[in-house]
Amino acid sequence: MEMIDWQEGCPVFLDQTRLPLAVEYRRGETVEQMAQAIEKLQVRGAPLIGVSAAYALALAARLNQGAADFMAAMEKDEARLRRTRPTAVNLFWALDRAMGEIRAAWQAAGPQGAAKRALEVAQTMKAEDIAINRRLGAIGQQVIQDGDGVLTHCNAGALATAGYGTALGVIRAAVEAGKRVHVYADETRPLLQGARLTCWELMEDGIPVTLQADGMAAVLMAQGRVNKVVVGADRIARNGDTANKVGTYGVAVAAAYHGVPFYVAAPQSTIDRSLERGDQIPIEYRDGQEMRGFQGAASAPPAVETFNPAFDVTPARLIAGIITEEKIYRPKDGKFDL
Amino acid sequence: MEMIDWQEGCPVFLDQTRLPLAVEYRRGETVEQMAQAIEKLQVRGAPLIGVSAAYALALAARLNQGAADFMAAMEKDEARLRRTRPTAVNLFWALDRAMGEIRAAWQAAGPQGAAKRALEVAQTMKAEDIAINRRLGAIGQQVIQDGDGVLTHCNAGALATAGYGTALGVIRAAVEAGKRVHVYADETRPLLQGARLTCWELMEDGIPVTLQADGMAAVLMAQGRVNKVVVGADRIARNGDTANKVGTYGVAVAAAYHGVPFYVAAPQSTIDRSLERGDQIPIEYRDGQEMRGFQGAASAPPAVETFNPAFDVTPARLIAGIITEEKIYRPKDGKFDL
Repeated sequence: MEMIDWQEGCPVFLDQTRLPLAVEYRRGETVEQMAQAIEKLQVRGAPLIGVSAAYALALAARLNQGAADFMAAMEKDEARLRRTRPTAVNLFWALDRAMGEIRAAWQAAGPQGAAKRALEVAQTMKAEDIAINRRLGAIGQQVIQDGDGVLTHCNAGALATAGYGTALGVIRAAVEAGKRVHVYADETRPLLQGARLTCWELMEDGIPVTLQADGMAAVLMAQGRVNKVVVGADRIARNGDTANKVGTYGVAVAAAYHGVPFYVAAPQSTIDRSLERGDQIPIEYRDGQEMRGFQGAASAPPAVETFNPAFDVTPARLIAGIITEEKIYRPKDGKFDL
Repeated sequence: MEMIDWQEGCPVFLDQTRLPLAVEYRRGETVEQMAQAIEKLQVRGAPLIGVSAAYALALAARLNQGAADFMAAMEKDEARLRRTRPTAVNLFWALDRAMGEIRAAWQAAGPQGAAKRALEVAQTMKAEDIAINRRLGAIGQQVIQDGDGVLTHCNAGALATAGYGTALGVIRAAVEAGKRVHVYADETRPLLQGARLTCWELMEDGIPVTLQADGMAAVLMAQGRVNKVVVGADRIARNGDTANKVGTYGVAVAAAYHGVPFYVAAPQSTIDRSLERGDQIPIEYRDGQEMRGFQGAASAPPAVETFNPAFDVTPARLIAGIITEEKIYRPKDGKFDL
């Protein structure tokens, strides 16, 4: 399963809004199409957003070959991509890294060299992401015991990355190490990434998974069925405060109440060392229409006021460990030093 | 707005599965139809289930006039109604009470007298329920301060009762007393009673309401927008442990973490003094299909395993007070003596 690739001069990506009902790939023929694919969550998940942005810049570099001022055109495209989603830091990290490489190549070899380099960077970042996830999984699976019931929220799986996954990479690595693991997937309202994506990709891999409504997570902990939580992250502040899909914070509070260890799994690129604390992370608020319906079926009065943040921040004191491709960070006195 | 009434020899009820898209009334022409209306949540909410069961017995008494053994036929119908939903004790309380009255009337005046009495009992229980809710609201509104943000889960409103509501009755009474209250309604997956019913009935009454996904409740508390929780109940054990719509327990855990007082509002008939603790309350598990979609729109792989309890139990230690039509019970050392 490829989440994104390059075919005949354009990025081609799996449209995740159609899963699990249909497996459909779309071609991004313009930077605007790629920006909208990110905004509409056709590609989503912090690491995959980063890789997709790099492919979008590779596309931009190809399309801007005839521009009067190549780098000015590239900067305009980059600015459009920066405006897509504010919370996942991987987007900005990927854009900064790719633009740096593109600028250097352009200085050395002009627009053609820059376009060649832009595509190489995107392909490299994709390959690196998969390798990072595998290292992260190998390290993180140490926290999983044979027989564990592991709850996860949203989708931090292969579908959220270039492949293998972060939180689900930890699960995959535990299963590959011969441990029996049962995953409990929060459906993750409003956009149902848990029900649509996590259940689907785990079933494809034959890993046992049970789907529950978000409000049932605490019940599973009280019943002793869940004894670990592993989630992904969209941005982690230096002290360990972690922004992730909305609903994560409530899971962390319930986990603390039940003495269930709560782990975050994310690559180093998700750590934003420019921010001291989580309250400095910008949180995206999305259209209320997402809350008023369910896959196109209306579920609320059309005029009802809504509260619809896409992310929440879990404070460091609720986190047992932050699993990265380098090491597992552990807190001291409820704080991390990342 | 009538939730249930008697017209031309049959109960007529508002089909709550169609709200808020359509306001449709249905006639219950057989006891089986009434039983299915309860099973399918066309009528729902612990107090309304009780009143509906009484109307179903009034219908049974009319239809059984020609039976060879009137009371045997009534007992068969009662048994069918008892099998509809296991958790809300109001169902059993109402059936016991109505059957006691029907039996006495039958002994005194035969099947005709029993039928007349059965209808009187149903009408009385309906009127009593509204009066009880108004008393409960008047008592309970004392816990609400001017300017409060009050979170509720599921629907314990006029639609869950014969009228006025329990948790929402407390809100209505606070608003009638001139207090400004903003309600935050959990949408309440999987059947979305909060989105469909609570938002709708509060908007009809002009009471400010905001809709959020269940996973956002803890975020609202962390942001200080919610400083009270009031929910209904389906069954309360003698020590105060409370069964209510699944998701309530997670809200209670989050409320405790944030120091937000968590109140239960329910009539005395919801207290089951035959049970010492909440773990003795039977919990209904419903079809997994409810978790895999909504109103026909699929949201998960069709074969995914699900966890779908309809209720959970909130332990007494998380409850600040149980509001009834007689008084507000307060815990001592984390336990109630009901």
